[in-house]
Amino acid sequence: MNNRQVRLKGRPQGIPQAEHFEIVEAAVPEPGEGQVLVRNIYLSVDPAMRGWIVDKVGYSAPVAIGEVMRSFASGRVELSHHPDFAVGDLVTGMFGWQDYAVVDGKAIQRKISELDLPLSTSLGVLGLNGITAYFGLLEIGQPKSGETLVVSTAAGAVGSCVGQIGKTLGCRTVGIAGGVNKKRLCLDEFGFDAAIDYKSEEVDAALAKACPDGVDVYFDNTAGPISDAVLKHLRLGARVAICGTASIASWDPIPQGPRVERHLLVKRARMQGFVVFDFAQRYDEARTKLAEWLRNGTIKYREEILEGIETAPDAIAGLYRGENLGKRLIQLASADA
Amino acid sequence: MNNRQVRLKGRPQGIPQAEHFEIVEAAVPEPGEGQVLVRNIYLSVDPAMRGWIVDKVGYSAPVAIGEVMRSFASGRVELSHHPDFAVGDLVTGMFGWQDYAVVDGKAIQRKISELDLPLSTSLGVLGLNGITAYFGLLEIGQPKSGETLVVSTAAGAVGSCVGQIGKTLGCRTVGIAGGVNKKRLCLDEFGFDAAIDYKSEEVDAALAKACPDGVDVYFDNTAGPISDAVLKHLRLGARVAICGTASIASWDPIPQGPRVERHLLVKRARMQGFVVFDFAQRYDEARTKLAEWLRNGTIKYREEILEGIETAPDAIAGLYRGENLGKRLIQLASADA
Repeated sequence: MNNRQVRLKGRPQGIPQAEHFEIVEAAVPEPGEGQVLVRNIYLSVDPAMRGWIVDKVGYSAPVAIGEVMRSFASGRVELSHHPDFAVGDLVTGMFGWQDYAVVDGKAIQRKISELDLPLSTSLGVLGLNGITAYFGLLEIGQPKSGETLVVSTAAGAVGSCVGQIGKTLGCRTVGIAGGVNKKRLCLDEFGFDAAIDYKSEEVDAALAKACPDGVDVYFDNTAGPISDAVLKHLRLGARVAICGTASIASWDPIPQGPRVERHLLVKRARMQGFVVFDFAQRYDEARTKLAEWLRNGTIKYREEILEGIETAPDAIAGLYRGENLGKRLIQLASADA
Repeated sequence: MNNRQVRLKGRPQGIPQAEHFEIVEAAVPEPGEGQVLVRNIYLSVDPAMRGWIVDKVGYSAPVAIGEVMRSFASGRVELSHHPDFAVGDLVTGMFGWQDYAVVDGKAIQRKISELDLPLSTSLGVLGLNGITAYFGLLEIGQPKSGETLVVSTAAGAVGSCVGQIGKTLGCRTVGIAGGVNKKRLCLDEFGFDAAIDYKSEEVDAALAKACPDGVDVYFDNTAGPISDAVLKHLRLGARVAICGTASIASWDPIPQGPRVERHLLVKRARMQGFVVFDFAQRYDEARTKLAEWLRNGTIKYREEILEGIETAPDAIAGLYRGENLGKRLIQLASADA
């Protein structure tokens, strides 16, 4: 039983590229007392992962050179020395980019209970993407019925969910995405009332047209020029929820942009950053609601599933090239028992 | 009875200078039905006044060329055709930079009731300066006991009040001001726990020393490089209350600065603009509390009183040159009956 692992080989400046990883074969250790052996079925590929390997104080200690790349994954228990988990259980957690993970029972995020839904959703809509959308929109954006909600990276795993939750709440939803295909996805699949392709359209003018009353809530996954344009359209009392900064290649040194203070002052507006981990005590609440929305068709999702661990090293870079349509996953084994 | 008026002569780009005003003698009109004749005793000089003459959509329509400069003022009723006001009453309102104002009764902001306190406080601590400090700090900054509060333009009319209210709430207070005299005022008069002279000290290093645990609340009157430095020291869950942008000479075009998104994200922090007028329904609440603090010595204030209307044209420019120590007023007549 060989374990292929994707290890961090070098520390990138900015976006991690294929050259910063290497695939290595290693033995699978024997699980000890209280430990569980998990065979990974899906590995997650998330924009936030670039932050996990930057040698800077961030949310957590960076992945060390030579270490398996940290990632969320979902898989099946193959061996268990922990009373809470049995062989065959589907589980999700920080299992890393590898075929097999030996982890402490308490390191398993949860046993998957939505067995009627595809396992892949545990890393997307029912994973941190959906939960991020849920708390970021409801707790930080605080949209009200009739308000205008603008979302950047609107065709992405988080953005698409934000738009659909906003729509359910009675908002006018406007999605910003890169490319004709993503724009179409926003309109046809995720039900945005309007969509803007920032690659082919002049965002400022398109926003003026799409948001005639201004922007009440901006769910921001990008920072950069898209945000600069949205800020000009804020309405009195607007809320900006800062979820990610996809358009900024590097924060060292901090890039320059138009100052925000006057927009915030004149519009009595608020910009607020959040990290989903702050809501860890409330994940079940979000997941229950999201699963309900999935089952009744309120929320649709799109996935792009890469086949095989060989696709991993270039997978984060691909996200930042904007090449994926939907939540990016890597499949290592069959989800069927 | 001649009325000297300071009229807007030209529209400035940026900070209004003496050359943008002219002093003109005019007749005092006869007050009509429901109107009141007020003799101005104190004229207010406020940083916000530069925004009132900029030909841009702001909080209100700009002062027209040839019009009397809009300003807060306090004075005495000399003639009244309004049942709520009698000759001799002290009143405050938007009476403009002139000796006499004829106004509708409803244009009078209030009849001054704190006759035991100096009339000048009606334009400072008991006027919009104090009320701005009160709501901006309590409602937007939301400081808690034991937190660190940083204030820019800390020796000014608003900033000094913010610091003293913060101190009363149990905060560690750190004031940033320009020049040795203002720094001393912060420490000796307004009771800040620490003060930084941004003209002679390296603000970033000084903040690190003055705020060893980071900054929980930043009450920002400046924007610009001072704010850029403070943002680097925000603590988890910090709140930035944006009250003014004194260090920005012009917002057209919007100046560049370091992007704020990553600070807000990593620190789960909030930046929020506010305008005191939004709290207009609650002014009495603030004034009652502020008057109580004035009487029991919790809040001290400093004024710089210019003599005569000839000082008005250069008075706003002087604020931005940072030459005043304390709330700047122009006295036109004796406050004694």
